[in-house]
Amino acid sequence: MSTQDDRRFMALSIALGARGLGRVWPNPAVGCVIVKDGRVVGRGWTQDGGRPHAETVALAQAGAQARGATAYVSLEPCAHHGRTPPCAVSLVNAGVARVVSAITDPDPRVAGRGHEILRGAGVSVTTGVMAEAAAAAQSGFLTRIQHGRPMVTLKLATSFDGRIATATGESKWITGPEARRMVHAMRATHDAVMVGGGTARADDPALTVRDLGIARQPVRVVCARDLDLPTWGTLARSAEHASLWLVHGPSAPHSARSAWTDIGARLIEVPDDQTALSPEAILAALGAEGLTRVFCEGGGQFAAALLRAGLVDEIRHFTAGLALGSDGRPALGALALPALAEAPRFMLRDLRSIGPDTLAHWVRA
Amino acid sequence: MSTQDDRRFMALSIALGARGLGRVWPNPAVGCVIVKDGRVVGRGWTQDGGRPHAETVALAQAGAQARGATAYVSLEPCAHHGRTPPCAVSLVNAGVARVVSAITDPDPRVAGRGHEILRGAGVSVTTGVMAEAAAAAQSGFLTRIQHGRPMVTLKLATSFDGRIATATGESKWITGPEARRMVHAMRATHDAVMVGGGTARADDPALTVRDLGIARQPVRVVCARDLDLPTWGTLARSAEHASLWLVHGPSAPHSARSAWTDIGARLIEVPDDQTALSPEAILAALGAEGLTRVFCEGGGQFAAALLRAGLVDEIRHFTAGLALGSDGRPALGALALPALAEAPRFMLRDLRSIGPDTLAHWVRA
Repeated sequence: MSTQDDRRFMALSIALGARGLGRVWPNPAVGCVIVKDGRVVGRGWTQDGGRPHAETVALAQAGAQARGATAYVSLEPCAHHGRTPPCAVSLVNAGVARVVSAITDPDPRVAGRGHEILRGAGVSVTTGVMAEAAAAAQSGFLTRIQHGRPMVTLKLATSFDGRIATATGESKWITGPEARRMVHAMRATHDAVMVGGGTARADDPALTVRDLGIARQPVRVVCARDLDLPTWGTLARSAEHASLWLVHGPSAPHSARSAWTDIGARLIEVPDDQTALSPEAILAALGAEGLTRVFCEGGGQFAAALLRAGLVDEIRHFTAGLALGSDGRPALGALALPALAEAPRFMLRDLRSIGPDTLAHWVRA
Repeated sequence: MSTQDDRRFMALSIALGARGLGRVWPNPAVGCVIVKDGRVVGRGWTQDGGRPHAETVALAQAGAQARGATAYVSLEPCAHHGRTPPCAVSLVNAGVARVVSAITDPDPRVAGRGHEILRGAGVSVTTGVMAEAAAAAQSGFLTRIQHGRPMVTLKLATSFDGRIATATGESKWITGPEARRMVHAMRATHDAVMVGGGTARADDPALTVRDLGIARQPVRVVCARDLDLPTWGTLARSAEHASLWLVHGPSAPHSARSAWTDIGARLIEVPDDQTALSPEAILAALGAEGLTRVFCEGGGQFAAALLRAGLVDEIRHFTAGLALGSDGRPALGALALPALAEAPRFMLRDLRSIGPDTLAHWVRA
C-alpha cells in the first residue's frame, strides 16, 4: 500500500480521534481505521469516559474482516492490562497483518511496548505516519504525560483594540451570536472550562455547554485564592448538574470551604505565593486530577499570569469590528516585559471570519 | 451585449481605475475600457497628477476602432472644459455608440451632464453597472465631493492584545517584514500619510514610501497644535524630497512657523478648541487642499479623536502573534463611550494572513 494511502487513512484516524476531545480524559482521544483490500471495514474512536478504546470499537465493527487487514491508529496501541486486554494484544488476536501508527505513546506504561508486542507477534508495524498532525490533535494528553499539566487554550473575545468591556464594565455583547455559539462548541472539546475568581464574581457565568445536545459537561474550574465567591450565584446553583472544582490557597477560610463542599463543589488546595495562586501549582493540581485540556476564559489578570508563566499553549481570539478605547477593560493584565523580545509569541494556525467577527487560532511559537 | 459582459468589462474598468489611487488627487481615479465586437480595443486610467483622464487614454489607444464601440467608465465622463475638452464630448467625437458607466459624478460641474451630453448626441447610455464596487473604489473622491473631507484609512499594527509598544516604548518590531512592506504599498495608494505630533516626536518617522520604485510620494501630514516638532529630525531633513504639511493651531509660535517655512514645510492653520486641534477642522482643511485619501498611522490619541468624531472610514489592522500586556501602550486612546452600543462599529471586508501576522480590513458599518 502506498505512502499516500497510509497518509489518507491516518488523516481519517486522526479526525475520528478528535471526536473524543473533551470527553475521554484522562485517556487520550485516539482514532482507529481498519482497512482490508483498500476498503474501510472498521472505524472507532475512544468513547466517552475513555473506554472502550478506539481499536476495540474498530475491531468489533470489522469482525472477521480484520484478519489480514491493516489497522491505522493515531497513537501507539496500549500495552497495559486495564479493565480490558491491551489493544496491541487485541489487534494480534484479531489477525491484523499490519499496524500503522502516528506516534509512540509516551505513557511509561506503553512507551513502545505496544509496537513491540505487535512486532513480536509477526505484525508488520509502520510508525511516525502524520506524526505532527497526530501530536497536535493529542497535545492535551501529551502535555499531561510529559509535563504533568493539561494543555491550556486561552479564549479571547475582544474589540479590535483588545478590550473586553467598556469603562463601566458593559460587555454584553462584543462579539456576535455566531462567535458566542462557537465558544460553546470549543468548551465541549475541552475537559474543563476555567476562569479566575474575579471573572466569576463579575460575570456570574454558568460556564456550561449549552444548546449543543452534549451529554457530558466539561468540568468547571474557578481559581479563587480565598474562595471569596458568592454562594448564591449561577455556579453554586448549578453545582449538582455540572462538576464545579474550586482551586484555592491555604488561606481560604474554613467557613467558605464547608459552604462550598455542602453545595457540592470539589475543593482543590494549592500553594500560593502570599499574593496569588501560582499558575504552575494550579495546572499541576489539575493535571494530577487527570485533566488534559483546559479552556481558560479569563479574566485578564489570570490570563496574564498564565502567559507570564509560559503556560498558554493555544489562543482562540475572536475580534469584533468595534473600538472601545483605552478606558475600556483590557483583555490581558500587565506582563511586566523587560523587552519586546521577551513577549510571549504565537504562530498563526488558522484565520477565518465568524459571522461579523474574526477568529484567529494561535499556537505557541 | 449581455448584462454579464457589462459587469465583466466594468470590473476591469474599476480595477484599472484603482491603479491611480493616491496619484491623481484632487481628481477621481477612473478606469475606462473600450470594447468593439467583444474585444478590448482600448484601456486607460487617470494618469499621475490627474490628467489625462482615463477616457482620453483609452480613446487614443482605440483610435479608429472606437467608432461604433462601447466604452465602460467607472465614473460618469466629465462635462466641464478644463485644459482639455470634456470626456463626454471626446467620446461623442470618437464615434462611440454606447457608454456604460458605474456611478454619476456628484461633482456639481458634472452631476449628470456628462450622461446628458452623450444621450443628446445619440449615444446609448447605461448607468449604475457595479455601482457599489465603483463607489467603494472611489470613496475618497466621493467623500471629498459630498462631505468636503478626504476619506480616512486608519492603520493599526498591534500585538493581539491591542498594544503598539512595551511599557518602555519599545515598538520595533511588532509585526513582521511582510506587513511592514505592505504598509508602504498602502501608503502609496493614498494621497497623504498623516500622524499626530506625539508620534512624530516619539518615532521620528520618514512617512515616505520606500523600496517600491514610485515616482510620486504621498504628502506627509503632521498635526501638531503648537508646532512643537524637532526641526532637526527625519521629517525636517526630507522636506525637500517629499511634501510636508504641518497642520497647527492659532497658538503655534511665530518662531516655529518661520523655522518650518524655511525648512520647506507647508503650514496649514486650523481652529482648535483650547486643548486640541479639531479633527473635523483638520480634515476640512485637507479636503480644501484637494486631498481625497488620507492614511492615518497614529498615534493612539489622534486615532481615538478621529474615531470619536466618526471620521474613520476604513481600518487596516495588522495583528502580530504576541502579547504585550496592559502595561504596554494602547493602540487607541480613550473613547469615553457612554455605552457599548455607542462604540464605533466596522464591517469586515477582507481578512488574510501576511507573513506571520494577520490583516483585517474593516469598513465603517
